[in-house]
Amino acid sequence: MIPKNAKMVFKGKIFEVWQWEQQMFDGSTEIFERLKRPNTAEIITLVGDKIMIQEQEQPGKPPFTSLPGGRCDKGENPLSAAKRELLEETGYTSSDWELLLEQNPVGKIEWTVYTYIARNCKKVQSPSLDSGERIETKLINFDEFLALADDPTFRSAELICTLLRAQANTKLKEKLRKNLFK
Amino acid sequence: MIPKNAKMVFKGKIFEVWQWEQQMFDGSTEIFERLKRPNTAEIITLVGDKIMIQEQEQPGKPPFTSLPGGRCDKGENPLSAAKRELLEETGYTSSDWELLLEQNPVGKIEWTVYTYIARNCKKVQSPSLDSGERIETKLINFDEFLALADDPTFRSAELICTLLRAQANTKLKEKLRKNLFK
Repeated sequence: MIPKNAKMVFKGKIFEVWQWEQQMFDGSTEIFERLKRPNTAEIITLVGDKIMIQEQEQPGKPPFTSLPGGRCDKGENPLSAAKRELLEETGYTSSDWELLLEQNPVGKIEWTVYTYIARNCKKVQSPSLDSGERIETKLINFDEFLALADDPTFRSAELICTLLRAQANTKLKEKLRKNLFK
Repeated sequence: MIPKNAKMVFKGKIFEVWQWEQQMFDGSTEIFERLKRPNTAEIITLVGDKIMIQEQEQPGKPPFTSLPGGRCDKGENPLSAAKRELLEETGYTSSDWELLLEQNPVGKIEWTVYTYIARNCKKVQSPSLDSGERIETKLINFDEFLALADDPTFRSAELICTLLRAQANTKLKEKLRKNLFK
């Protein structure tokens, strides 16, 4: 999406700003701008027939509901990031991973959100949270999971459409249920 | 969302990058980063009992479906921007405007998307497109409007949830229909 002739004009802590000369329909040119940021991975964490979600606080923000997950480190592939974040944030691991969604939430930002299913998760250690995380986990059932689409603090704009489509359509709902719990 | 002690560290064509020292839960500090960008306005354009949408092309992008709309100019309020964009892109005006949605699509970006209803729109001039726009308009009915949620090229992530909720729930559907057409 950012063309090859683009140049990075600023590199921040999270975001890079890229610009290029874009030819317009009338032959004139304008400076176009897009951003890059690290990709993120989030995990639908299945524990038995339940789904583990987080009630989370971060400095300077109101509390929110989320799935386990976080940013990919430099050079880290999204599945490795998902496994690392799940272990760090919850202490759980899984040997049965599947990619459910791969989405680009914002047109002007080169940023992919990977949503994984981690089945049959087992606790192997205590969570190791960093100084910017306060997380409590909670187990919910499939119908409560679909209802997350109606929780205004739920932090996964990417997943919300999938949950709403499942609410709207019984076939999609049963397909999602089967996809998760096999 | 960007605190008062934040400083702008870069100003691009569209995006500004802001940083500040954030105190963490353990008393340590880290540099936090957020962006600002101009707010945008989009318009549900009612022409009789139909809704006007756009088939649009912009340089360097695949064609997409959208509502009329665009960025607020510096100092311009969103309703003025909506009226200006509707006139420029379609040649239509309305004397019956209502704000339907006000949303912040991305956590790390200070950016509000305003979705307006413009009722009983009338054509008063030809569209005046800029060199970065190729737009054809199309009139659709309410059910086709709801189905836009299933068009992968539809460029309004903000509206899609509202459309999906209306698909999922007959009461919400009739409420939205009434909201649009009174």
